[in-house]
Amino acid sequence: MAVYSATTTAPVNIACIKYWGKRDTKLILPTNSSLSVTLDQDHLRSTTTSRADAAYVKDRLWLNGVEEEIKPGGRTATCIAELKRLRKELVEDVDSAAPTLSSFSVHIASYNNFPTAAGLASSASGFAALTASLAALYSLPCPPTTLSLIARQGSGSACRSLLGGFVAWNAGTLDSGLDSLAVQVAPETHWPEIHALICVVSDTKKGTSSTSGMQRTVETSPLLQHRIEHVVPQRMIDISTAIRNRNFDRFAEITMADSNQFHAVALDTSPPIFYMNDVSRAIIAVIEEYNRVALLPENGGKRKAAYTYDAGPNAVIYAPAANMKEIISMIIHFFPQQEVFKDSFGLFGTDGVGVGGPGFVSGFNANVAKTWELGAIKGLIHTRVGGGPRKLGQEESLLGDNGLPKILA
Amino acid sequence: MAVYSATTTAPVNIACIKYWGKRDTKLILPTNSSLSVTLDQDHLRSTTTSRADAAYVKDRLWLNGVEEEIKPGGRTATCIAELKRLRKELVEDVDSAAPTLSSFSVHIASYNNFPTAAGLASSASGFAALTASLAALYSLPCPPTTLSLIARQGSGSACRSLLGGFVAWNAGTLDSGLDSLAVQVAPETHWPEIHALICVVSDTKKGTSSTSGMQRTVETSPLLQHRIEHVVPQRMIDISTAIRNRNFDRFAEITMADSNQFHAVALDTSPPIFYMNDVSRAIIAVIEEYNRVALLPENGGKRKAAYTYDAGPNAVIYAPAANMKEIISMIIHFFPQQEVFKDSFGLFGTDGVGVGGPGFVSGFNANVAKTWELGAIKGLIHTRVGGGPRKLGQEESLLGDNGLPKILA
Repeated sequence: MAVYSATTTAPVNIACIKYWGKRDTKLILPTNSSLSVTLDQDHLRSTTTSRADAAYVKDRLWLNGVEEEIKPGGRTATCIAELKRLRKELVEDVDSAAPTLSSFSVHIASYNNFPTAAGLASSASGFAALTASLAALYSLPCPPTTLSLIARQGSGSACRSLLGGFVAWNAGTLDSGLDSLAVQVAPETHWPEIHALICVVSDTKKGTSSTSGMQRTVETSPLLQHRIEHVVPQRMIDISTAIRNRNFDRFAEITMADSNQFHAVALDTSPPIFYMNDVSRAIIAVIEEYNRVALLPENGGKRKAAYTYDAGPNAVIYAPAANMKEIISMIIHFFPQQEVFKDSFGLFGTDGVGVGGPGFVSGFNANVAKTWELGAIKGLIHTRVGGGPRKLGQEESLLGDNGLPKILA
Repeated sequence: MAVYSATTTAPVNIACIKYWGKRDTKLILPTNSSLSVTLDQDHLRSTTTSRADAAYVKDRLWLNGVEEEIKPGGRTATCIAELKRLRKELVEDVDSAAPTLSSFSVHIASYNNFPTAAGLASSASGFAALTASLAALYSLPCPPTTLSLIARQGSGSACRSLLGGFVAWNAGTLDSGLDSLAVQVAPETHWPEIHALICVVSDTKKGTSSTSGMQRTVETSPLLQHRIEHVVPQRMIDISTAIRNRNFDRFAEITMADSNQFHAVALDTSPPIFYMNDVSRAIIAVIEEYNRVALLPENGGKRKAAYTYDAGPNAVIYAPAANMKEIISMIIHFFPQQEVFKDSFGLFGTDGVGVGGPGFVSGFNANVAKTWELGAIKGLIHTRVGGGPRKLGQEESLLGDNGLPKILA
C-alpha cells in the first residue's frame, strides 16, 4: 500500500522592518509591511513530517513529541483546511487519477532543533514547515509566495519563512488578504556575507505575548498610526534598495532604527510593554559604540553591525561575515560565557573562546557597558542568511508506519 | 551703609506632560507645551541669596559652596543680565531715588537641600531660586509669569518652578519667546491631596544629558513631530480639565501615558536614549497592577496612582494622600530599604517601616515583580504639591558681609 508522507524543514526569520499590529486578527493581516532575513537551516530549523492515511480517524499534531490539540477553527486547523482545499481544487479536481488525500486525515509531527528556552519564536519556522510539508505531501503546484498566504494564517511572520534570503511581507490592502503575502527581495546568494549572531538573554520576567501585545498597541498607542502611514512605507523602499545594492551601512541604519521604533510604540502602549531589559540595553550600547568608531572617517565611515530585537530581550546582531570575529570578541568581553564558545564557522579555532574574551577594536570606549555576571547572555548562536524550506527524503520522516512520532518527548 | 541682599527658596517641579525638544536652543523655546506639579519646599528646595555691592568687581556664583564660573553669554549670565535690565527699565528709570543696583556686580550663593546624587534635576529649582532672589533684590514689580520668561532661559523647566500648584508652560509661537511662559492652571490649595513619592533608583550607567538628548530626538526621531503636533495639544487640554475637576483617574491616565510616550520618543532616537532601567520597569509593573485592581468595578473603577519618569531612572509616583500608605507599603515590599523609612507625614508612626514592608491591597498579584536586592531603590521621599518661591528674612542669608558664602564646601 502506498505511503503518503512528506518531510520538510523550514527556517527561522528575523525581521529588520518589524511587524506589529493586525488589521484583521482572524486572517492575520498586518497594519504594515515588514521585511526579514531568513536564517540558515544548517543552524536553526523546524522539521515537519505530514502523513495522510485513509485509516486515520482525525487530524493530529505532535510538537517536539508532545501531542497538541488541534482546536476547531484555530490557526492550525485553518492552515490544514486551506491546504486540503488546494489539494482538492488544484490536484484532485484536475486529475481524476490522483489519490483523494484531501479526504484523509493527517498526522503531523514537528521538531525544532533549538530549545524553546532559547526564546526564539518557533511559530514562524513551525508554521512554515507545516505548510511546506503538507504542500509537498499534496504535490501542490504552488510557488512559495502562494503558500505564504496559508502560513500567514498560522502565524503572521511564518509567511516570510517560506522564502530564503531577504523577504518582504507586503501588508496588502484587500479584505480577503490575497495580496498580503511574502515575496523575495533578494535570494541568499545575492548577499551571502550577511551573518547573524543571536545573543540569548536571560529574563526573569514573562513578557507580554506578541499576539495580545500588538493589538493593545493598535488600540492605545497614539504613535503607531504615524509609524504605519508615514514611516514604514519609506523604510521598506529604502531597505530593499540597500539590500539590492549590498549597502550594509544603510541596511544597518534602517534595521536599528526600526527595531527601536517597534519598541518605542510598545512603550507608547497603555499599559506599556517592555521587551528589552538592562542586558538588551547594554548590547545596544556596545554595538552603538562599535559603530561610532567605525563611522569615524579614518575607519571608513560605515556601520559594521546592526542589532535588532523582537518581542523579547534577545539580540540578533547582523553583520558582514568579516566583522563577526570582532563582534563576538566584544560581546564575550562584556558578557562572559559559562561554556567556552565554539564558533560554528571556526572563527576561534577548535579551542573556542570563553570568559574575558579577546577584546576590542582600536578606539573603542570600553566604559559604555560594564562586565556582566556569567549567564547574563546565556548563549550565542552564530548563523547567516540562508535559503527557504527544504524537502527531505522519506528516511528522515518523523512519523513511523504506525502514524505516531518516532521520538516522543 | 545699606546692604542690598535677598534670599529666596524655590521648589522642584515634576512634569506630567513632558518637555522634550527645543525649537530655539538659545532662548530655550520648546517644541511643545508641558505641565507639571510643583512640589512642597518643606521637603525639596533650592535656596539662593543674591547680594549687590558697588565694591564687587564681577558677578560671582557659588553652588553648594563651590564657586562656578559664570560663562559670558552662558545661561546664568543671560539670566543675570535680563534681571539687571529689568531693574534698570522698571525701577531705576522710573524712580531716580532708587539705588542703581543694575550697575553693581552681584554675588550669588545657592544651596540645594537634596543631594545631587539623588538624581533629581536641580536646575529647575536652582534657576527659579536664582531668578526669584534677584527679582527680590531688585524689587522688580513683576508677577511670576513674567519672571518665568527669564528662568526659562536658564533651564527650560525652571520656568515652571516660579509658580506653585499645577503649572503649564505654554510653548508659544513667537520667535522672541515672549509667549513661552509659565501659567498657573490651579494653585496648590485647589487640590492639596495630591502627594508624591519619589523613588530614588540606583543606576550604574551615566545617562545622556537631557540638553543633548532632546536635540538628538528632534533631529532623528520620526515619531516626535507627530507627538508635538497631534498628541500633546489635546493632552494639555485634557489634563488641565482633569486638574480643575480634581479627577485623579484621568490625571493619572494622562500622566502615565505621557511619561511613556516621552521615553518612547527617546527610544525612537538614533542612537536610542534609555533613561529607565529594570528597576524603573519593575516600579511601573507594580503601579500598573495596583491600578488594575483599583479599576475593577468592585473596587471603584478608578486609578489610584500615577508614575512618571524624567531623564533618569527615578520614579515619581503621584497619588491622593489617602492612597500613599498602601503605595509605600507596596514599594517597600518589592524594594526593601537599607534604612527604616520614616515617613515625613508620619504614616508609619515613629518606628517607620523597613525590609519586607507591610504588604498589598487585596487582589494584588505579587508576581508582577520580584523582590529586589537592598539598594535597588536607594531612598524614598514623600512630599506633596506645594507653593511657589518664598522670600526669606535677611537672617537666612547664605552670603556673609564679606560677600562670600557662609558655608563653603
